[in-house]
Amino acid sequence: MRVEDTQPPHAERPIRALPGSAAVEIIDQRWLPHELRLVQLQDVNSVTTAIGDMWVRGAPLIGATAAFGIALQARHDASDAALAAATAQLQQARPTAVNLAWALRRMARVWRPLPPAARAAATWAEAQAIAAEDLAVNAAIGRTGLPILQALAAQRAAVGSGPLQVLTHCNAGWLATVGWGTATAPIYMAHALGLKLHVWVDETRPRNQGASLTAWELGRAGVPHTVVADNAGGHLMQQRQVDLVIVGCDRVTARGDVCNKIGTYLKALAAHDNGVPFYVAMPTSTLDLSLDDGLAEIPIEERSAREVTHLTGRDAAGQLVEVQVTPDGAAAANPAFDVTPARLVTGLITERGLVAAQADALRRLQPGAAAEGPST
Amino acid sequence: MRVEDTQPPHAERPIRALPGSAAVEIIDQRWLPHELRLVQLQDVNSVTTAIGDMWVRGAPLIGATAAFGIALQARHDASDAALAAATAQLQQARPTAVNLAWALRRMARVWRPLPPAARAAATWAEAQAIAAEDLAVNAAIGRTGLPILQALAAQRAAVGSGPLQVLTHCNAGWLATVGWGTATAPIYMAHALGLKLHVWVDETRPRNQGASLTAWELGRAGVPHTVVADNAGGHLMQQRQVDLVIVGCDRVTARGDVCNKIGTYLKALAAHDNGVPFYVAMPTSTLDLSLDDGLAEIPIEERSAREVTHLTGRDAAGQLVEVQVTPDGAAAANPAFDVTPARLVTGLITERGLVAAQADALRRLQPGAAAEGPST
Repeated sequence: MRVEDTQPPHAERPIRALPGSAAVEIIDQRWLPHELRLVQLQDVNSVTTAIGDMWVRGAPLIGATAAFGIALQARHDASDAALAAATAQLQQARPTAVNLAWALRRMARVWRPLPPAARAAATWAEAQAIAAEDLAVNAAIGRTGLPILQALAAQRAAVGSGPLQVLTHCNAGWLATVGWGTATAPIYMAHALGLKLHVWVDETRPRNQGASLTAWELGRAGVPHTVVADNAGGHLMQQRQVDLVIVGCDRVTARGDVCNKIGTYLKALAAHDNGVPFYVAMPTSTLDLSLDDGLAEIPIEERSAREVTHLTGRDAAGQLVEVQVTPDGAAAANPAFDVTPARLVTGLITERGLVAAQADALRRLQPGAAAEGPST
Repeated sequence: MRVEDTQPPHAERPIRALPGSAAVEIIDQRWLPHELRLVQLQDVNSVTTAIGDMWVRGAPLIGATAAFGIALQARHDASDAALAAATAQLQQARPTAVNLAWALRRMARVWRPLPPAARAAATWAEAQAIAAEDLAVNAAIGRTGLPILQALAAQRAAVGSGPLQVLTHCNAGWLATVGWGTATAPIYMAHALGLKLHVWVDETRPRNQGASLTAWELGRAGVPHTVVADNAGGHLMQQRQVDLVIVGCDRVTARGDVCNKIGTYLKALAAHDNGVPFYVAMPTSTLDLSLDDGLAEIPIEERSAREVTHLTGRDAAGQLVEVQVTPDGAAAANPAFDVTPARLVTGLITERGLVAAQADALRRLQPGAAAEGPST
């Protein structure tokens, strides 16, 4: 098989436009990894709920879903007032999601100049275009990353045996996008092409996106993987059980500082200390040239303490149950992201090629259209 | 108050000899942090269960509990055969616990030379001595660490305000010992003396000893604290929200490499990267001069995958419930400890003073009597 012929490793899509343009189908990700629930969204209210209550998450997927929300509204009432209200309502569903705001602005540029009667078809087409572009960007990220995996696999084969050992943090997989994922795209392509690999999946407390979403994705795609506590990665690297780290990112500054899920910085430190390459999969839309010093300039979202003190899983009877793991009254803090300084980043895997995490290299890179927001 | 007058901050003791020498009282730690259950152990079988099923955990506490197990057996049947059988049974309860084996050897040196009629009283006294010695060692560790905290608090006061910010990992607290704890001893003493401090408590996946045990201990003692995911510590240090890290240890090599709970190494890397002092509280009994290169020579216990895939907490109805957090069939790995290279350790806080994590300094230190084992 050639790389051009590889397909996303999932029969379902995180979001799918249904024939007749009257609804989109999504995966209600709150039930993962225990249950695959497909849900049809037929109006902007259900789309708002799906975004606000995190049935869908991940910056690209939130953006595409919101775009379809506008298109569904246009089908019912395409007046300026109705579409403006829908836009405001969707934006409020996740107020800090940069990608959501971007998608809504892009949709407005399409519907605003048109007469109401033309808006339903145009917005539906634009939402489909947003989704298709995300899929194409991720496939291109996969093609950029693939030779890196192939080269490291060859190095491993030269000195020993066993599969290529990849470590990833959080979920930068297809569930966070319209398909392929970002950090997972090279992994899925390499797997499809027969490269033997194994993925260490960081649990990613407190929301457990690794243990639940990434492990579920990789399992369905047949990619060998093992879940580990977030504490384990340094030890695995010391023991030469990791050939490379690949993570996603939420924002990258002009000098290459990387904002990503909390805990990423600790893995980057361990990679650096053990000579393990540390790569960041980055749609160029994630580049924010208005920022330079990530540590000083990127505000870090503080999320609910309850995500630390409580946790949901499946009990012996198959029911989802929320349990408390801390003593009554214990305070908890929950910074959701951290910043990995550019000096710890081996390279940025983008849809336009491999780029150094350095100001001059990033300046030469024209940023993509979308400004991505936190992906949770 | 003078430091000599400070008392362990807990009304209960992790283990307490009851009057009449017919029983010991322990805390069944499996119910923490949700419930404080005191249990009386009256024979060697119940002591074996308490150790094997982890009602008690922590190397010093396991050793002391096992010693009382021998004393309780001697009260019922002090024959050589009965005491040898009790010794073997207790050893099997946690086969890899070095401190357990040490305590049983120490007890055998007491009872073996004596006529059976003298053994009950002698073994009871020896078990009490083991417990008292652990308490004294921890108090001495506290007195060594206290001036370090006081000096850093003065530094903080000179440049800003707010309490001294301490970060700790896992539970090296009084619940793991006979009292005071190791890493917590300086914290409790400083708090008793009125020093304003706040402790960041690493959750410590997968067994959550921080979120459950350390948070519970600190809460009962009135020490301000906040639970964070293990992923958060690096970010907190980058944001200058940590003045020092103190952790316990399970084994320290001749050159100062520190084996401790998985994830300790990642915090040491972050401390080093941010200029934050990283201290290890070390009873000198933990020093293992037979080892040098910790990474190469210390075998790391691989524990059950189920500790990663499943987790127990309290549901809304107040019941303890075990839930699964990973997809069905997902593999998990669970290395229980890691090794922090000596180069990342600012100093070792021992009952004989502050010692550099360096071969010459450690060679001058006569190791204590007990060889401690994994404390989980």
